[in-house]
Amino acid sequence: MAITGLLLSLLIPFAAAKMAAQGPVVSPEVHADRTVTFRYRDPGAKKVELSLEGVDSIVMTKGANGVWTYTSEPLAPDIYGYNFIADGEARLDIHNPAVKPNLIWVGNMVTVPGNPAEPWEVQHVPHGELHRHFYKSGIIGDERDYFVYTPPGYRPNAGPKLPVLYLLHGYSDMANGWTAVGMAHVILDNLIATGKAKPMIIVMTLGYGVPGFASPIQSGFRDPNRTSRNFDLFRKALLEEVIPAVEHDYRASSTRANRAIAGLSMGGAETLFVGLNNLDKFAYVGAFSSGGLGGDFNADFPGFDGAKTNKALKHFWVSCGVSDGLITFNRNLVTWLKEKNATVDFHETSGRHAWMVWRRNLIEFSQLLFK
Amino acid sequence: MAITGLLLSLLIPFAAAKMAAQGPVVSPEVHADRTVTFRYRDPGAKKVELSLEGVDSIVMTKGANGVWTYTSEPLAPDIYGYNFIADGEARLDIHNPAVKPNLIWVGNMVTVPGNPAEPWEVQHVPHGELHRHFYKSGIIGDERDYFVYTPPGYRPNAGPKLPVLYLLHGYSDMANGWTAVGMAHVILDNLIATGKAKPMIIVMTLGYGVPGFASPIQSGFRDPNRTSRNFDLFRKALLEEVIPAVEHDYRASSTRANRAIAGLSMGGAETLFVGLNNLDKFAYVGAFSSGGLGGDFNADFPGFDGAKTNKALKHFWVSCGVSDGLITFNRNLVTWLKEKNATVDFHETSGRHAWMVWRRNLIEFSQLLFK
Repeated sequence: MAITGLLLSLLIPFAAAKMAAQGPVVSPEVHADRTVTFRYRDPGAKKVELSLEGVDSIVMTKGANGVWTYTSEPLAPDIYGYNFIADGEARLDIHNPAVKPNLIWVGNMVTVPGNPAEPWEVQHVPHGELHRHFYKSGIIGDERDYFVYTPPGYRPNAGPKLPVLYLLHGYSDMANGWTAVGMAHVILDNLIATGKAKPMIIVMTLGYGVPGFASPIQSGFRDPNRTSRNFDLFRKALLEEVIPAVEHDYRASSTRANRAIAGLSMGGAETLFVGLNNLDKFAYVGAFSSGGLGGDFNADFPGFDGAKTNKALKHFWVSCGVSDGLITFNRNLVTWLKEKNATVDFHETSGRHAWMVWRRNLIEFSQLLFK
Repeated sequence: MAITGLLLSLLIPFAAAKMAAQGPVVSPEVHADRTVTFRYRDPGAKKVELSLEGVDSIVMTKGANGVWTYTSEPLAPDIYGYNFIADGEARLDIHNPAVKPNLIWVGNMVTVPGNPAEPWEVQHVPHGELHRHFYKSGIIGDERDYFVYTPPGYRPNAGPKLPVLYLLHGYSDMANGWTAVGMAHVILDNLIATGKAKPMIIVMTLGYGVPGFASPIQSGFRDPNRTSRNFDLFRKALLEEVIPAVEHDYRASSTRANRAIAGLSMGGAETLFVGLNNLDKFAYVGAFSSGGLGGDFNADFPGFDGAKTNKALKHFWVSCGVSDGLITFNRNLVTWLKEKNATVDFHETSGRHAWMVWRRNLIEFSQLLFK
């Protein structure tokens, strides 16, 4: 069953012939010593930078063949987002199939593997499943989706009901943010395999209460009324549409003690808004690098009562990277919470406003749940 | 709950500040008259082309602001893949979150909507679900995944067993090809809603029998032994791992009459290889724009018997676009089949080697199944 070069060329789609004719560019190339070489072919560019997550922009070097390259120092094992910037224009690495889905800022990803493997790397352990649901929201009015992770060994018609973590993405992410970029399903597979996390269901729903809220043209946040509606309708859809559907379709516990809510950035703000204002619904609250609330906490959490909150929550987590522009907002939040006598487990971690921080947040937070 | 411009800027990831400072580029912009404007900012480029699926390369026009634009004629309602080509280099449209996942040729997509909506557009009908399974293949040796579509109203623990279509992607696609690009779940939702297709389960598994077979550096097809192993081990994993798992985990019929297999390009060749050589397993075979078999049909289908095939198959579909480089291969195949007295429903359609052809193939083929 052989194939000729001619036949192969017939399988190649539009635009690909030109790329092939120029010879392959390999990018990124992860070496055994954890250095990474990035390559971008652009003979006409005057300056090409690499914008690497967690690092400042790095100037690349042009080779005789028009390929700009940069080889890093050995990098800590992690998943790094990146873009190229050619003469000031952000570009994608067309040679890398690992694309970060995003409504506004599409980027690429490269994994520098650990030895032993890090919790976000696929390992030979039992795997859970991801289920994608589609529905028309009567509250928000659009066709939307949510993802449900069921842990290894979950059977739809047997076994005990499982606790549920509602896990919210950030501004500009889609419903697949926590899986495609955050690797939540891989992380939980690995933590469950070693007994570090309890088997749980994770629900990851689209985090906008207003269609088109995340737009490159006109950010929804610029309009306070729209921002307010975004939070209010998101909460309504979560509580009245998503949670009931999950508890109907899955062996999902509907008791307060078996529900947790957590999220990053805008999803962290939604977590605080939904969690602290609905203590009858959730026993665990985790806000990662939150941003998007206005800062008038008395207005955001009317009638907030620290003692009541302490009694209701089994764990209340707030975290932010010290190099994140939102660290001041989060410190102010924690100060306000403590003034109200709330007990809060505040983590000032290293890092910026980046997925490498949020994966680690999930790894730690998920191990605290349902124990 | 207001947010300041300052706070918004803190939510913006790396590389995005530069893009924002330059002002937004909107691309693609689909107008009410079905014309589409594509925009690509590259002040230094000498020539920028648009490579639009189903159309030849189109030269774009440079504006004073360094933005290259092209506005099409009114386009037929469809989903069009595209890339930009700047001075001969294929580029992605970083402003468009609709990315075509692919192991080798990543591209963008734009939907020109129909009125009424086309079958591949999300409509207000009951929706099925997509389930993503992860497993280590003992046969192939890697960690891999497959997707399962369950139709609207499917309940894991109630109702009759459903027929199953095994639907295979093409060379360089991933397991998500038929959903992320082919919109198979949307198509079936819409066909089932109008009673045109029977409710069915669709299984979309990773189509490689050899890890790394689809690589930009060294195509697996260049090595006949590797090609052969790719087909053999893919078949083994499908028959011995995927089908048993699906029939264990889902209310999936395991009778021959309720199993169909179809695929595109390399997946079409796999469909023929698996389907025609395993008549005890499938009652429907659909090969769309097949390519990847060597052309020695007597070797690929040893002992092929037209009469026996006619008796076993309820429908045997072969199709190819007349502008597809593989049309000759498919005509030769059909000639050979007819010489062997096989009954084959051969469709020479318009179009090239492109998803716009394969979505239409699925729309027609799925309506023939399980009736």
